Amino acid sequence: MSKIKFILIFASVLLFACQSKESNSVEKLTTIKELHAKIATAKAGDEIVLANGVWKDVEIVFKANGTKENPIVLRAETPGKVFIEGISNLKIGGNHLVVKDLHFRNGYTPTDVVILFKTDDDTPANHSKVTNCVIEEFTQLDRDATDHWVEFWGQHNELSHCYIAGKSNFGPTVRVQLKGNQHINNHHQIINNHFGPRPRKGGPHGETLQIGDSGTSMTPSYTNISNNYFERCNGEVEIISSKSNFNIFKNNVFFESEGSLVLRHGNYATIEGNVFIGNDNSEFIGGIRVVNTGHWIMNNYFYKLKGSEFRAPLAVMNGIPKSPLNRYNQVTDVVVAYNSFVECPTPWFFSVGSNVDKSAVLPKSEIRSARPIRTVFANNLIYNNQTATNPILNYDKVDGILFEKNITNNENKSEVKPKGLTTVDFSVNKLSDNLFVPTKNNTEVYNGFDFENINTDLFGESRAKNNAVGAITIPVKENMVLVNESNYGTDWFNPKKEKREPKTFTIHPKDLKSTIASAENGDIIVLESGEYTLDTTIDIDKKITITSADEHKKVLLNFTANNTAFLMKPKGDLRLQNISVKGNKTQNAFATLDKNMSKAYNLFLNNVEISNFKTALSVSKGSFADTISVKNTSVKNLENGFLLNQEIDAKGDYNAEFVFIENSNFDEVKGTVLDYFRGGYDESTIGGNLIFKNNTITHSGKESADKILIKNQGIVQAEISENTFINNPVKLIAILWGEKGQKPENNKIKNSGEFKIVQNLKQKLMY
Amino acid sequence: MSKIKFILIFASVLLFACQSKESNSVEKLTTIKELHAKIATAKAGDEIVLANGVWKDVEIVFKANGTKENPIVLRAETPGKVFIEGISNLKIGGNHLVVKDLHFRNGYTPTDVVILFKTDDDTPANHSKVTNCVIEEFTQLDRDATDHWVEFWGQHNELSHCYIAGKSNFGPTVRVQLKGNQHINNHHQIINNHFGPRPRKGGPHGETLQIGDSGTSMTPSYTNISNNYFERCNGEVEIISSKSNFNIFKNNVFFESEGSLVLRHGNYATIEGNVFIGNDNSEFIGGIRVVNTGHWIMNNYFYKLKGSEFRAPLAVMNGIPKSPLNRYNQVTDVVVAYNSFVECPTPWFFSVGSNVDKSAVLPKSEIRSARPIRTVFANNLIYNNQTATNPILNYDKVDGILFEKNITNNENKSEVKPKGLTTVDFSVNKLSDNLFVPTKNNTEVYNGFDFENINTDLFGESRAKNNAVGAITIPVKENMVLVNESNYGTDWFNPKKEKREPKTFTIHPKDLKSTIASAENGDIIVLESGEYTLDTTIDIDKKITITSADEHKKVLLNFTANNTAFLMKPKGDLRLQNISVKGNKTQNAFATLDKNMSKAYNLFLNNVEISNFKTALSVSKGSFADTISVKNTSVKNLENGFLLNQEIDAKGDYNAEFVFIENSNFDEVKGTVLDYFRGGYDESTIGGNLIFKNNTITHSGKESADKILIKNQGIVQAEISENTFINNPVKLIAILWGEKGQKPENNKIKNSGEFKIVQNLKQKLMY
Repeated sequence: MSKIKFILIFASVLLFACQSKESNSVEKLTTIKELHAKIATAKAGDEIVLANGVWKDVEIVFKANGTKENPIVLRAETPGKVFIEGISNLKIGGNHLVVKDLHFRNGYTPTDVVILFKTDDDTPANHSKVTNCVIEEFTQLDRDATDHWVEFWGQHNELSHCYIAGKSNFGPTVRVQLKGNQHINNHHQIINNHFGPRPRKGGPHGETLQIGDSGTSMTPSYTNISNNYFERCNGEVEIISSKSNFNIFKNNVFFESEGSLVLRHGNYATIEGNVFIGNDNSEFIGGIRVVNTGHWIMNNYFYKLKGSEFRAPLAVMNGIPKSPLNRYNQVTDVVVAYNSFVECPTPWFFSVGSNVDKSAVLPKSEIRSARPIRTVFANNLIYNNQTATNPILNYDKVDGILFEKNITNNENKSEVKPKGLTTVDFSVNKLSDNLFVPTKNNTEVYNGFDFENINTDLFGESRAKNNAVGAITIPVKENMVLVNESNYGTDWFNPKKEKREPKTFTIHPKDLKSTIASAENGDIIVLESGEYTLDTTIDIDKKITITSADEHKKVLLNFTANNTAFLMKPKGDLRLQNISVKGNKTQNAFATLDKNMSKAYNLFLNNVEISNFKTALSVSKGSFADTISVKNTSVKNLENGFLLNQEIDAKGDYNAEFVFIENSNFDEVKGTVLDYFRGGYDESTIGGNLIFKNNTITHSGKESADKILIKNQGIVQAEISENTFINNPVKLIAILWGEKGQKPENNKIKNSGEFKIVQNLKQKLMY
Repeated sequence: MSKIKFILIFASVLLFACQSKESNSVEKLTTIKELHAKIATAKAGDEIVLANGVWKDVEIVFKANGTKENPIVLRAETPGKVFIEGISNLKIGGNHLVVKDLHFRNGYTPTDVVILFKTDDDTPANHSKVTNCVIEEFTQLDRDATDHWVEFWGQHNELSHCYIAGKSNFGPTVRVQLKGNQHINNHHQIINNHFGPRPRKGGPHGETLQIGDSGTSMTPSYTNISNNYFERCNGEVEIISSKSNFNIFKNNVFFESEGSLVLRHGNYATIEGNVFIGNDNSEFIGGIRVVNTGHWIMNNYFYKLKGSEFRAPLAVMNGIPKSPLNRYNQVTDVVVAYNSFVECPTPWFFSVGSNVDKSAVLPKSEIRSARPIRTVFANNLIYNNQTATNPILNYDKVDGILFEKNITNNENKSEVKPKGLTTVDFSVNKLSDNLFVPTKNNTEVYNGFDFENINTDLFGESRAKNNAVGAITIPVKENMVLVNESNYGTDWFNPKKEKREPKTFTIHPKDLKSTIASAENGDIIVLESGEYTLDTTIDIDKKITITSADEHKKVLLNFTANNTAFLMKPKGDLRLQNISVKGNKTQNAFATLDKNMSKAYNLFLNNVEISNFKTALSVSKGSFADTISVKNTSVKNLENGFLLNQEIDAKGDYNAEFVFIENSNFDEVKGTVLDYFRGGYDESTIGGNLIFKNNTITHSGKESADKILIKNQGIVQAEISENTFINNPVKLIAILWGEKGQKPENNKIKNSGEFKIVQNLKQKLMY
């Protein structure tokens, strides 16, 4: 029996016991009016019970005062059977309050917070907690609408054993506020939570957790973030943004999360015993990024992290001399000791963010030229099974780091070869998933100032007798694992969706709309061969594959309505294969909702023909595609091709994360073949990826306003290679961004303008 | 018997006892070699005794390790009988060390510190102290040479019961260093010291105490500055510059010190129970200036403070939005509670430093537009015997301050009239010098967040029963005083110089030089009447008055040597009355040493005639006159008049603090009548004072390079009034600084150019 199943059964038994008790003694409330009436008279020790069912459009204000011994508890009748839905939220104010067992879903908050630890500015919560709750995709309709799902105020509050996932709009999922003396020295506990997937946002402000902000970065916070599981938290480059002092990050697991634990502002953080797990394929999964002063980073375990620069396993940044409050202070007085880096080919990056060469396009107050100083790297272990001879990458001199007693099992051929990083021939044993430890202790360690306080290892074993380099000393207790799922989240909610076999419907195309409406996520629709006219728009709000019954012959769909052929809605995921779509020149082939694109969509075209439309793809501001993939496709007779260019505020947002256009033909596209835009000087995001490869473009661009065929302004990764451009009356094929390594490769060009490379892009400052 | 005398006698008795013991048991060292040999073998509990006498040109390195129970002590054989002189200093490194009873004088350090709490970078002192010592005028020869007299490194060190006075060069007297984890959380104790007069420096970097710097302003320091006496610490606008976090300033007395306790960088300072005493005449004596976040200012007593802006009794500054690290952060989350302001007509200044109107001459990163926010003023008491109806002066909106339960005995006619500042009719009793308390408790108080921690008053009396507005609750214990001198400084050194009656010498002028050489400070030299030729330079290195025997007739001194007539040396203070000095056109009438003007000088001319010199006064870079006073004097046939213009580095320094030129005549001064210069954008100093009044200037300026008669660039206070300018062929009489309120008043001008007013002076940024 799996552990999870066991827990579920065990929980059910417990629930049954509770229910029996409740039905006798505790009043179950069924309306918000009853609830508020009950709260108004609640006394220390009271239980306030929400009856099972859906509570829709409720704004719960839980203002009361319990005592340490007798808190006031607001809870679900049955854990997981009370759903807060619609336009709803919860405010908690007072002392010694507990909220538990609620499930927020199918809605969003009417204010800017879902669960707020204050009822008004004069009434923060103190010594109160939210525990064993779920917040699931309780996201704003508009990506640009800002909110937080949990916002801490007051002191000594707790968020524990919750499952929180699926925020796709602007704003950190959890935010600790420090504005005002009532809220500092807060000692909040954010513990044992499961932060489930947060999708890529396609712009900044997609942190999972932010503690303070630059304006309160001088405050003592003492927030404790321990024993949490961050699973694929991909919102932006910062999974956690620590922006206050004395925060503690201990024993958390960061699993395949595209970002880093970032010490963005504030000082003296403790990062101890955390586990960072990447994978072989991603360069977006980071580890820890260090800014500011006095942090202690120890006993952490980094595994299979392949990221670089901001997303390096360990990135130590350059600061701005005398930095403005909201930019980058110099790194000073940081200690990095007793960490293990396993299968991280280049674990240490120094002077990340150095941009002295960009002084032509950036003001002096943005130039990160202050190297890290008074910083100690000691007793760290680097292991790579394959040859990996560049443990250090540096963007500036490395003259402020003291290296002592670090070891690697590979030769160090980096530019920087400190004496304190030596090559030692050692091997490792695999003890459990992703957990590799040396076969013997490397006992020669450095004892720096205050190192005697590092007296245990990653697993809490004393270092007194068996001290050794790296996060883990041996022997390791039996059955140790890096990720113990039972530590995280609620005792009643299983975030793992059951796998479902997709169904296949073979239909006449006239039934396409209705079939999709009734199909389930992942289903496949096979269209009978032929040519058909559809005087409608096909809505896509789930994963749907549409293909032709005859794999050798495309189905031709003639769209005659004025509206778009396919309308992509939130979570729409359309895979079109072997289909030809033809328009009447007035509509778009694919488009998103004009607004409320609350969640990302995907579009995969393979062996498709698109013709006689206004635009191949037209998107709205706020819409976001995770992937647009166009392969083996023919695009012709259009005003424009793919337009992903609506985020014009220059605030770092963009309309798609990955755009692949390969092995395809564009002919007679009058305007721009592709306009893929990201504006604003921002380093928070992956920043867009374009692969435009092996395509043929002919007779296009003649009406392009600025005489450019392919526009990719501000997109960080762009490959334009192996294409053939013939007879396109433009001035430029594309402008590429030299600093990011962009250059045209192996393109054939005839009567089609040229490529231009701009080394340093001038971008609007957002700060 | 006075308390001090009693202490001295008591100390002598103690000394006698100690001496008897010593002579039997403890080796007295007489050379630095012996001393270092002894230190090299010192063990816990050892005493290392310097034999009485002068130790000249010694660099003592006290590196050893005692224990908590048995420190190692380095001390004078007899307190006050061991003099460290010449080019000397002391370094202390190791643990549990004590230095006591030494007297530093007649010299300066060859390094940049006199007493350094580390022997090398790897050996800071910890748990060590310097106590019962004197550092007296141990100042560098050159004002621009930088040093500190006591520099703290390490943790848990102490400076106690010392007398420290007379630093006139660049650099804070005492400096706490925080660069490196070994030096933070230091809990240093700076207690029971007497910081004697620090003269005006005439430029920045004249603090008496600086804790950290902007680069370490994020560090937790926890330095405790308590029970010290700051007497006329006039070095610059900051007596204390707190630049780190969590520092404590408690029960200190600031007596007639021209500056403030300034929370310059760093946050969360505690300023509790301090006494600030000004006087009726000075506008330079300040109180507390607040920048940054989270400070608690309570139970302080402010008396007779008349300063404004930076020197206000309580100045709350505007910050720079997103300030650079070394500039001005916004004030947030500050609590000002239970303070008493007695005879401070305008105690509260808000948005000090607001300079939005200067955006034309300052970069955006210098514009202080961020008003204080989330700040509480509560339970403060304001008392003025005379009508004083402007308790608040504001340079911007006051919208971020919560006023609660403050009282004043005058009507509030300020622009800002918060409800939380009410007029209450109450009177005060005088209990002792400068100590006034209300005749009854004003018991209506506000209880803000964490106010329960303010549980005592200025005198340590519990507030539990008799809580009241203001720093002092009644009843007050009998015989309470604000300044108890026996708390401060050593038990053996009396800084009060005996008063000496000046002697008068009536001499023939040929004996002038030799008489001055043998005269003592303050003596008066009366010259026999007549005309005399002096082929020499008269050196002035003390206070000397020279006058004519015949009060109705000037003595005429004809100077024939090529060198200056009067050479002002450090501490020179020349008062010339009823004397005529005439040159041969090749030399100056008055000049300073070319270098090593280690201390300030003064020049007072009354009823003097100066003619046929190159220059009336010519000074060197680094020289500094506290006062240049020229009254009822005639100046003619000179190339230039008074030149105080050698600080050309634009770093905020200047050559004289006060320049008075009144009721005097200038005729045929070819160049500039006065050039009084301060360069650089700096707010650290008084910034110079010029009164040029009721003078007549004729036929002057014809060879002035820039056609200006009077130059006062950068001088903060300048009054040019009631003068007569006739037939001076210049373009401008003077350029005045509008922002500082400068304007010409009641001058008569004929054929002499005009005044120009520049509102905002463009100055070189120093930061």
